[in-house]
Amino acid sequence: MNHGNNQRLYINEVATRDGFQMESHFIPTDDKIALIDQLSTLGYAKIEVTSFTSPKAIPALRDGEEVMARIKRKPGVVYTALVPNLRGAERALDVNIDEFNIVMSTSETHNLSNLRMTREQSFAQLAEVIGLARGANVPVNVSLSCVFGCPMEGEVPQQTVLGWIDRFAALGVKGITLCDTTGMAYPTQVQSICSAAMARHPRLDFTAHFHNTRAMGLVNSVAAVEAGIRRFDMSLGGIGGCPYAPGATGNVATEDVVHMLQCMGYDTGMDLDGLISAAAQVAHLVQHELPSQLPRAGHRLTKHQPPADFPEIVARAAAKQGARTSARETLS
Amino acid sequence: MNHGNNQRLYINEVATRDGFQMESHFIPTDDKIALIDQLSTLGYAKIEVTSFTSPKAIPALRDGEEVMARIKRKPGVVYTALVPNLRGAERALDVNIDEFNIVMSTSETHNLSNLRMTREQSFAQLAEVIGLARGANVPVNVSLSCVFGCPMEGEVPQQTVLGWIDRFAALGVKGITLCDTTGMAYPTQVQSICSAAMARHPRLDFTAHFHNTRAMGLVNSVAAVEAGIRRFDMSLGGIGGCPYAPGATGNVATEDVVHMLQCMGYDTGMDLDGLISAAAQVAHLVQHELPSQLPRAGHRLTKHQPPADFPEIVARAAAKQGARTSARETLS
Repeated sequence: MNHGNNQRLYINEVATRDGFQMESHFIPTDDKIALIDQLSTLGYAKIEVTSFTSPKAIPALRDGEEVMARIKRKPGVVYTALVPNLRGAERALDVNIDEFNIVMSTSETHNLSNLRMTREQSFAQLAEVIGLARGANVPVNVSLSCVFGCPMEGEVPQQTVLGWIDRFAALGVKGITLCDTTGMAYPTQVQSICSAAMARHPRLDFTAHFHNTRAMGLVNSVAAVEAGIRRFDMSLGGIGGCPYAPGATGNVATEDVVHMLQCMGYDTGMDLDGLISAAAQVAHLVQHELPSQLPRAGHRLTKHQPPADFPEIVARAAAKQGARTSARETLS
Repeated sequence: MNHGNNQRLYINEVATRDGFQMESHFIPTDDKIALIDQLSTLGYAKIEVTSFTSPKAIPALRDGEEVMARIKRKPGVVYTALVPNLRGAERALDVNIDEFNIVMSTSETHNLSNLRMTREQSFAQLAEVIGLARGANVPVNVSLSCVFGCPMEGEVPQQTVLGWIDRFAALGVKGITLCDTTGMAYPTQVQSICSAAMARHPRLDFTAHFHNTRAMGLVNSVAAVEAGIRRFDMSLGGIGGCPYAPGATGNVATEDVVHMLQCMGYDTGMDLDGLISAAAQVAHLVQHELPSQLPRAGHRLTKHQPPADFPEIVARAAAKQGARTSARETLS
């Protein structure tokens, strides 16, 4: 694997949307705002603040407008939100969102299960959202689910994935996020799909979004960066998941991936110590243990103390060495 | 990342030694034997059966002789054990071990903490073991700890690692295992150290041994295989760890790594479904949850059921589509 050579990568935080929407209890609005303000100082390219889905469908994010209105926006950071339809788009425009993140699945079964529409129905609805965005001069990113497989259908043909990218590209979207919704991606597949998509649409901003469901989140991130992907979705603490794949907990954890990428010589622009502090705050807010590993283990060069009896160990080892040396001297 | 092109890899199981020695309760001898007999059918190149350390130091493995004597050895599988010194070597020879696995650390502080000797003292003691092995015609593998960093000292210079490899190579050992004892390795470093070691000693059998402490166990495995490493230590369920690095739980899990390598097109020779069954047996024996992820998530193509109301979802979506089509027909 190649050294990063200070290649600039762009990190998007999704914990506040993709993560919080899965939590069983409501995170207070003030806490969400304080966390996002903390995140804004850490070097992120983009923060997915909330979702303008129906408050009945996702009550955890029913405070989207208030959160968007009250966070302190840092210049240079893109504050995005999930926008499912025209109604959501209007709500997002009212609070001056920087970008619409629209979602549909490349798998018919997953799209029906998750969005209760056929893919064609989703596409028609999202085309209207894209039209509204164009009028309002707001860029649109499309998060395509199940790009690396569907937990109900199995493999999703690469041609199907590329076909949906083509259709959205034709509508003038700015970016496409290739989502491994339930952690089915593996490195050589990531390389293949990312390369094909980028070759076909060199002017689109592609983002990779991995889950660590089968322990491959980090290796898939390296596969994507080696294929030329420069933008990554991650979730602090590894929170979030997909309800349609039991056991499939966990977006890839921001702190774990950033730590690896920094070790490898990539420029993530991120403050790693700040991320570990923010992950502790996320753990406090969600009130459960996080799947991420760095907060428990520390940076790779975190120094641990030797055992308490280390001085005695050293002294005994030296005494044995001395005894041997004396014995050898007596013999010679 | 490259497709595996059916490249043959050789998998060593270490759960029964490296894993079980860390468990707080004694695994009954009969259970150990039954598990190893089960593992022998799964395609492993090598199984680290036990340790011939002092039964006082590691009571969990005090039944080493009985286990070695009673397992059914499958031809072609190498049954190895950790041998710390001449006394252990004699015990191992008494039960016709196939290989000695000897251990020391490339870090002085870690060697003193773990083995209560200086590295020179360890080397002198291990040289005697190697001498005995040569006389008995038993091959020796050296597991070098802290090759990718020491939890107490920090970086271990690559020249230090290569220096210890040179000294053991000069004594005629068959193989060297490069151990990431506390999960400090990262992919570009793995590439660099593995390549340097193999270039310097093309006739030694090198094995990589990773921990998943900082979520990089799988990506480091890919880095090693891309550097040309063909032998890997793994632990079913991801059990085992190092007591000198708090939070540093977990050898890389056999089932997680084998699943990834098979997805990528490598020939591991392993029976993946058998591994998942064996991991369930390990969980039963250790009586705690395993860090591995595949037993919870299943293979990447494990099919999940759509939501229970899927037929109604489909019917409603079709009805909406029909309504739209009718409306359009009425207009035209």
